[in-house]
Amino acid sequence: MNAELIAVGTELLMGQIVNTNARHLSRRFAEMGVNVYWQTVVGDNPGRLADAIRLAAGRADLVVLTGGLGPTTDDITRDVLAHVTGRKLATDRAALEKIRRFYEERRMPMPESNARQAQYVEGGEPLPNDTGMAVGTALEHEGKLYVLLPGPPREMEPMFDRYARPWIERRLNGEQPIFSRMLKFAGIGESSLEAALEDLFRGQTDPTLALYAGDGTVTLRATTRAADRAEADRRMEPVVAEIRRRAGAHLFAEEDVGLEEAVVRLLAEKGLTLSVAESCTGGLLGQLVTSVPGSSAVFYGGVIAYSNKWKTKGLGVPQELLDGPGAPGAVSAETAEAMAAGLLRLTGTDAAVAISGVAGPAHSEAKPVGLVYVALAARGEPVRTDRLNLTGGRDGIRLRAARHALYRLWQWAKEKP
Amino acid sequence: MNAELIAVGTELLMGQIVNTNARHLSRRFAEMGVNVYWQTVVGDNPGRLADAIRLAAGRADLVVLTGGLGPTTDDITRDVLAHVTGRKLATDRAALEKIRRFYEERRMPMPESNARQAQYVEGGEPLPNDTGMAVGTALEHEGKLYVLLPGPPREMEPMFDRYARPWIERRLNGEQPIFSRMLKFAGIGESSLEAALEDLFRGQTDPTLALYAGDGTVTLRATTRAADRAEADRRMEPVVAEIRRRAGAHLFAEEDVGLEEAVVRLLAEKGLTLSVAESCTGGLLGQLVTSVPGSSAVFYGGVIAYSNKWKTKGLGVPQELLDGPGAPGAVSAETAEAMAAGLLRLTGTDAAVAISGVAGPAHSEAKPVGLVYVALAARGEPVRTDRLNLTGGRDGIRLRAARHALYRLWQWAKEKP
Repeated sequence: MNAELIAVGTELLMGQIVNTNARHLSRRFAEMGVNVYWQTVVGDNPGRLADAIRLAAGRADLVVLTGGLGPTTDDITRDVLAHVTGRKLATDRAALEKIRRFYEERRMPMPESNARQAQYVEGGEPLPNDTGMAVGTALEHEGKLYVLLPGPPREMEPMFDRYARPWIERRLNGEQPIFSRMLKFAGIGESSLEAALEDLFRGQTDPTLALYAGDGTVTLRATTRAADRAEADRRMEPVVAEIRRRAGAHLFAEEDVGLEEAVVRLLAEKGLTLSVAESCTGGLLGQLVTSVPGSSAVFYGGVIAYSNKWKTKGLGVPQELLDGPGAPGAVSAETAEAMAAGLLRLTGTDAAVAISGVAGPAHSEAKPVGLVYVALAARGEPVRTDRLNLTGGRDGIRLRAARHALYRLWQWAKEKP
Repeated sequence: MNAELIAVGTELLMGQIVNTNARHLSRRFAEMGVNVYWQTVVGDNPGRLADAIRLAAGRADLVVLTGGLGPTTDDITRDVLAHVTGRKLATDRAALEKIRRFYEERRMPMPESNARQAQYVEGGEPLPNDTGMAVGTALEHEGKLYVLLPGPPREMEPMFDRYARPWIERRLNGEQPIFSRMLKFAGIGESSLEAALEDLFRGQTDPTLALYAGDGTVTLRATTRAADRAEADRRMEPVVAEIRRRAGAHLFAEEDVGLEEAVVRLLAEKGLTLSVAESCTGGLLGQLVTSVPGSSAVFYGGVIAYSNKWKTKGLGVPQELLDGPGAPGAVSAETAEAMAAGLLRLTGTDAAVAISGVAGPAHSEAKPVGLVYVALAARGEPVRTDRLNLTGGRDGIRLRAARHALYRLWQWAKEKP
């Protein structure tokens, strides 16, 4: 079965809101094994909405419309679907009763327009709205399925999950659902990873493989159709095992979690604690780590050593590393190491990681934009330092530097008992 | 002029990401006076993408495609547009050189597929990518305009704003351009601001006024069509002056800058320096301040005082404030004040700001999620502390807490000579 999603609302076309309904429904349909080939957004305009519905019915088996079910005159979705299918509107008595009661209990007069929210397209089934007023519609018409849902996510999501999804699933005769597995990589670029797995990508049709790059991480998704999760896992396991064999050193998770979450979990599992010293990232690494709920179990704190004075006073970096003739300067392996080692002494955590670099836009100390040093100090181990050449503008460089520090922490913690 | 936006990417149809590019472009087109009647999402499938392009060209003057310009084999957008318009691909030599240099500097072999990112559709103009590798295309073909942009927002947004937008604006012949003015507010909610300006919103048709809320800031956009900037400014000035009169205490900028940028500029202008002490925000405030290029002129550094031990050891917060019977605890006005005062002593900056609170999801010290204290210490002044009750989930609470600290800094610095 193929579906098309149509979101109705001029506020989407004006950029006032983002179409998160499309994401929610697309995820659900992926789970159900329904292919979404098109998503469309159209405004509160009867002619264009009718065109969009006719176009969708011509290229999909199931047309799902969200938005435009409210009480005001620009809420036109149910009227336009009724017009396109040559039907009338019917009233859901239970929904109308609920609306009336709402106003009675508040001792307010019910605006007449509110009765519209109890209407659905005749011949279809009204879909109850447990978290709002407007009912939906589920309709079969000339061999196509139509589902009308309200626009606000807190009404749309329960209506879909409780009423529309079972209605659609009863009509999914025979097709097997889709199952995915996510593999998450760090410390390797998208094209290097693709090159390492090229033959798998070329030869593979079941499961299908796809790569997506974020800032400093890459996601590989393997997808197959199967009767159930167990069969899907059996079919995917050989190729996943081969990917693990080739790129396991970069594979930080086999589910859809961020690198910071994987690192916090791993540190917590192993009972390790962490502190951070940040120059060019200015607090970003600490912010990423503490974005994970429960990070207080592993994260002690840190020093934002932005100025050279604070590197010396706050972390004990020797002044002679930072300035003077022949000094390596703030952006150097020596300074990053002194930052990490100084922090470790101050905090007594199991690991201390330091970042110093040039995030741009201007270079500094005559060093190029994108040059970043990441140092990891751990008790009883020599300090290890990476030299990076990063691209992507100030924000991109900072994010990649912080993600690289997380990757190094993950590598380090993985080897711990 | 009417535009259709086509986002290309199976990850959108699978619900893995949200189409934020559509929002960004729709807002820009609203400013430019270009009507967006359709937004479409289609997967990495040549046949369906070609159909989408043909359909869009039939109903819009301008077709803007985002995504599918990367180096991998499922990046097909430029090839499909070339096919649909019967053109070849050309290579942008400057872009190819930049890609080669990137790999040379890193002493890495360039994967051959990377050269694809320097290609654009022949007969069009390549659009430079200042924050990434893949060039875009701006093309006129049979009376229609086509613009190809990369998918990642941090590449798409600068390419659109710097190169595609001026290219489109040169082709907006005859229609009077739209001019906007942005007024940026902090320390006030969207609905309070709307209530304060309600009669202006109701009565106003030229300029039109619109409000958008971000996390902790609110943007008011006034828009008018005019022959030139000077005429537009003359038309907008009376209503802007009235808004200034009513809500000036919250108006931190009269242009589209972030609060952190406004604060850094103001501190720099007044020759003031800053340090930060962060508990629940974990580095976010430092990260926001240092996201502004040139922040090193005002930002000394800080302490991420996440654990209580580090609050004591790194900032000198008295132990008896943090625990023991009857202690106010880490989330209290007393601790926030001690953090700010301790930091001021250590760093000697003109101002030191501290944040301590409960970001959630779990409460802590039996205090509710969203309770946050922000303290500002400045030389020779009493420490001033705000108690906030914030909503919005862990990320939202942290961001609003950091933005509130910035707002307090802005208020404080505004009064300095």
